[in-house]
Amino acid sequence: MTITRRVIVHEGPGGSFESMAVFDDAATAPRPGILHFPNVLGTKEADFAYAEKVAALGYAVLVVDVFGQGERASRADPDPGRYMTPLNDDRALLRDRVSAAHALLKSLNEVDKNRTAAIGFCFGGKCMLDLARSGADIAGGVSFHGSYQAPPFPNAKITAKLLICHGWDDPHAPLETTVALAKELTGAGCDWQIHAYGHTSHAFTDHDANMPEKGLAYNADADRRSFRSMADFLKDIFG
Amino acid sequence: MTITRRVIVHEGPGGSFESMAVFDDAATAPRPGILHFPNVLGTKEADFAYAEKVAALGYAVLVVDVFGQGERASRADPDPGRYMTPLNDDRALLRDRVSAAHALLKSLNEVDKNRTAAIGFCFGGKCMLDLARSGADIAGGVSFHGSYQAPPFPNAKITAKLLICHGWDDPHAPLETTVALAKELTGAGCDWQIHAYGHTSHAFTDHDANMPEKGLAYNADADRRSFRSMADFLKDIFG
Repeated sequence: MTITRRVIVHEGPGGSFESMAVFDDAATAPRPGILHFPNVLGTKEADFAYAEKVAALGYAVLVVDVFGQGERASRADPDPGRYMTPLNDDRALLRDRVSAAHALLKSLNEVDKNRTAAIGFCFGGKCMLDLARSGADIAGGVSFHGSYQAPPFPNAKITAKLLICHGWDDPHAPLETTVALAKELTGAGCDWQIHAYGHTSHAFTDHDANMPEKGLAYNADADRRSFRSMADFLKDIFG
Repeated sequence: MTITRRVIVHEGPGGSFESMAVFDDAATAPRPGILHFPNVLGTKEADFAYAEKVAALGYAVLVVDVFGQGERASRADPDPGRYMTPLNDDRALLRDRVSAAHALLKSLNEVDKNRTAAIGFCFGGKCMLDLARSGADIAGGVSFHGSYQAPPFPNAKITAKLLICHGWDDPHAPLETTVALAKELTGAGCDWQIHAYGHTSHAFTDHDANMPEKGLAYNADADRRSFRSMADFLKDIFG
């Protein structure tokens, strides 16, 4: 196994983007492809490292830039959400960008275009959900400490199976929002699961998250459990 | 591997009981022991068959009779809950019976008494929870479509890790009861997870459940997913 990274610069709705393909270069046959949507900060080393763990399970991963080439933030920035906010304000543009990323994933030589899924973290959870809400033909989607609010326009029937990995104490996804998501997914005919973890905040997969006063904290148990649940889930949907 | 059943008649709080040990007779070393608490109907073939699947994972299982020898019900009975009701009304007696069952499990030759856990189905989920609430030294507990109401007396700190497998549409465990359980477990310092399954009713592991008008229905997806989550969980707690 030789996990490899390949930068992909691509044109898309509203600009140029720089994503990263991560896959086992020793594998020869096309394999299931996974879109990996990063958190509010955009693509970074932590995403590539996580994607390598997913690629080691036998998948080709595309870590998706939805903000635009060079548009990356850090937690120390005065406004870490400055690239996310315009997309939260224009969910149609967000939908078009995640759809374009899905088309890109399916076009990669390493990917079996008939077997794709998506995973997402924090704002990336919303990206995954919005792709599923668009009616995209992904087999499944996994959200980790995601954002659940539905777009302000009607959505398609959701054919993707969804796994929502959720920190019970996440102040960014309180009980009423989580219950609203469950109702939305049920109404959309979606096969869904929510795995809720006690004593767990937002950003539980993020080793660098250490702002408990803002409800952001890494949680090793939830990270390990959600990774395993994702691995089981992907195995289940791809057989 | 030679999965074997052995009937065990034992005296306990308030009477005589008939439980069933299920284990691999080809294994020689003591292994982790699992209490299996059946649903409202009491021990039956479906429990022994499920216990065989758990035993095949490398555990010694004790399918526990908490009602009393010969006290078994069926769904067709005018009052299928007639053996459960007295225990719902006397949670101290229930606690003493599940504690006695735990002592019995630890005494079995096949069991490593320092590595035990409990699983429970429907009313058996309550049995598992009440054992954990008593402060028992089980490493973990798994509830499948369980009953969540706390006993009317104060409980110990919960040292067991808990996995609650929950049907989102279960009318016997509505949202407010589930949220109350999450709060109770958080307050008790318990390491907990709730896995909620969409489009899933009560009794989702029970192949014979087919009363959707009462919110009881087998669900193959939830059965398969919860079994796998349990297997992952037991592996996690026993290393």
